[in-house]
Amino acid sequence: MPILRFDATTHDWVIFAPSRVRRPREIRKEAGASLAALPEEAACPFCPGKESLTPPEIYALRNGNSANGPGWNVRVIPNKFPALRIEETPERLEDDQGFRYMGGCGAHEVIIESPDHRTALAHQPVAQVEAVLRTLQARFVDLMRDSRFQTIVLFKNHGERAGTSLRHPHCQLIATPVVPRLLRVRHQIATDYFDLTGKCLYRVLLDLETAAERRVLLSNEHFVAVLPYASHVPFETWILPREPQASFGSVPPSRLTSLAEMMKTVLLKLYVGLDNPDFNLTVNSCARGDEDEPYFMWHIAILPRLATPAGFELGSGMSINTVMPEEAAEFLREVRV
Amino acid sequence: MPILRFDATTHDWVIFAPSRVRRPREIRKEAGASLAALPEEAACPFCPGKESLTPPEIYALRNGNSANGPGWNVRVIPNKFPALRIEETPERLEDDQGFRYMGGCGAHEVIIESPDHRTALAHQPVAQVEAVLRTLQARFVDLMRDSRFQTIVLFKNHGERAGTSLRHPHCQLIATPVVPRLLRVRHQIATDYFDLTGKCLYRVLLDLETAAERRVLLSNEHFVAVLPYASHVPFETWILPREPQASFGSVPPSRLTSLAEMMKTVLLKLYVGLDNPDFNLTVNSCARGDEDEPYFMWHIAILPRLATPAGFELGSGMSINTVMPEEAAEFLREVRV
Repeated sequence: MPILRFDATTHDWVIFAPSRVRRPREIRKEAGASLAALPEEAACPFCPGKESLTPPEIYALRNGNSANGPGWNVRVIPNKFPALRIEETPERLEDDQGFRYMGGCGAHEVIIESPDHRTALAHQPVAQVEAVLRTLQARFVDLMRDSRFQTIVLFKNHGERAGTSLRHPHCQLIATPVVPRLLRVRHQIATDYFDLTGKCLYRVLLDLETAAERRVLLSNEHFVAVLPYASHVPFETWILPREPQASFGSVPPSRLTSLAEMMKTVLLKLYVGLDNPDFNLTVNSCARGDEDEPYFMWHIAILPRLATPAGFELGSGMSINTVMPEEAAEFLREVRV
Repeated sequence: MPILRFDATTHDWVIFAPSRVRRPREIRKEAGASLAALPEEAACPFCPGKESLTPPEIYALRNGNSANGPGWNVRVIPNKFPALRIEETPERLEDDQGFRYMGGCGAHEVIIESPDHRTALAHQPVAQVEAVLRTLQARFVDLMRDSRFQTIVLFKNHGERAGTSLRHPHCQLIATPVVPRLLRVRHQIATDYFDLTGKCLYRVLLDLETAAERRVLLSNEHFVAVLPYASHVPFETWILPREPQASFGSVPPSRLTSLAEMMKTVLLKLYVGLDNPDFNLTVNSCARGDEDEPYFMWHIAILPRLATPAGFELGSGMSINTVMPEEAAEFLREVRV
């Protein structure tokens, strides 16, 4: 049964999901597990025909066949080892020593990107990437109807160094009952900026990056891909909308083709240029209630896992980046895909 | 030449140290390098007799022999690939597009823990652990005389998953020309708590943990080792002083034996109980100017790298922990060393 505990020194809420590993002794083994040991096609619970190995599906794009059988194109299921669960209540409590905690209320879903076990998202047709984005948005909008959820983090872990545990291409989402501190920080800074200048910080940064050109990787009518000035990791790449939109839920459906085209090209350039790097991808949206505010712009951040954050980064929260984003952008612009 | 760039969306300063890797193309190889490929004793620049392979030493505990030759017990050298350099100035500047940066001013030193290439700190005699702590404190106090440095992060990376790049046991320190945002957060929360209650938050938490007992691993006259209530990672272990001390520089030298004893025992319990896990260790101290404030207590945090933070953690800043600290503490208490 997951719970959240309050870290009084940083005001973070830490998710405890102890059911994921049974005993302290076992975690050592888990940590040592490598992708080589992960189930391949024959045993993969995400492959068509193996639907009974997963919890019943929540959502699917499929061609008329019945739920929980094959015939789907994109399939959404609850995570079998959820970090947070829809059955819990987000009541805030205090234990008898005065430590604060709350129920592990939320949602944790897996979006299986296609029936194909081996093809990375970068190599899928644009229509399939668009189907994934459409599914992500549908789940985002549906879950935000539950007023207990403060924000939804959409993310993808590609490769062992990025923390994936199953090779079949998939994304995940976690809806949280609190606003994560990092979102609070981003939001406070953006609202302060708006108060002081009357402008959206993200729009201003995007305009500056577009004018500077050097860190822009791609642009089309509706979106821009840029390697930000203060990238925290080598080859960090953001995709931002040109129109003001605080929430991923607000992207007009007609824009998803354009977003899919850009996302596929960016992922393909990284795949080819850096030889299929492990990476995390996250969709950063505003918290509940700020969907129509002019302060923030949702964006996709792709974070290749080329370097290992070490003691300095963990102790200080500061990042050390060994590649200038303008050099990384120049390199990626030249990659032909 | 390192620089720091300002992330306008989070107010983080990101360190750019591009000299560490020459070209974007090369980072792929670097990232793939494994410990197996690291130099062993015959080629190790940290072993006695190889002093000429490192930059000239800054400090050493040695038995009368001359600098930069063998005969040392603990040796401190500049990092050959520094994240920050003492030669830069911490001037804050703006480029012609309006992006903010500053010189990569700071210090980055390596503390070689003993002449012995193969013996982990956990297996060193207490006297050697104490010699390392004494050296760390001497460097901390000396560098804090340079008023350009706002804080000093002491850290150790043990094992490949913890980001180490040389097997010979060593710690590092980085002095920074800015107060990292994470320290600002901790400081602000602690001062607010003091304003509201008149008490030190860390002292209160330590008293609560000591009273609760379940998460206490070890205690002696001067220090307590505890697995905090809201641990961010499995087996996270803190060592805190019993006396109020905001800075590691303020620990009375007479206490270092007691600290060394506790640190050795904690590291040995982790080594034996979890089969030599990769870990980071950081010493969290206050920023310049707060050394005598009653708000904060310096502490050591040991963070085993048993799990891989993935897209959710990177996107939200929230942690998912799969092991309850009380279970981890019970497990470690039973480990005989």
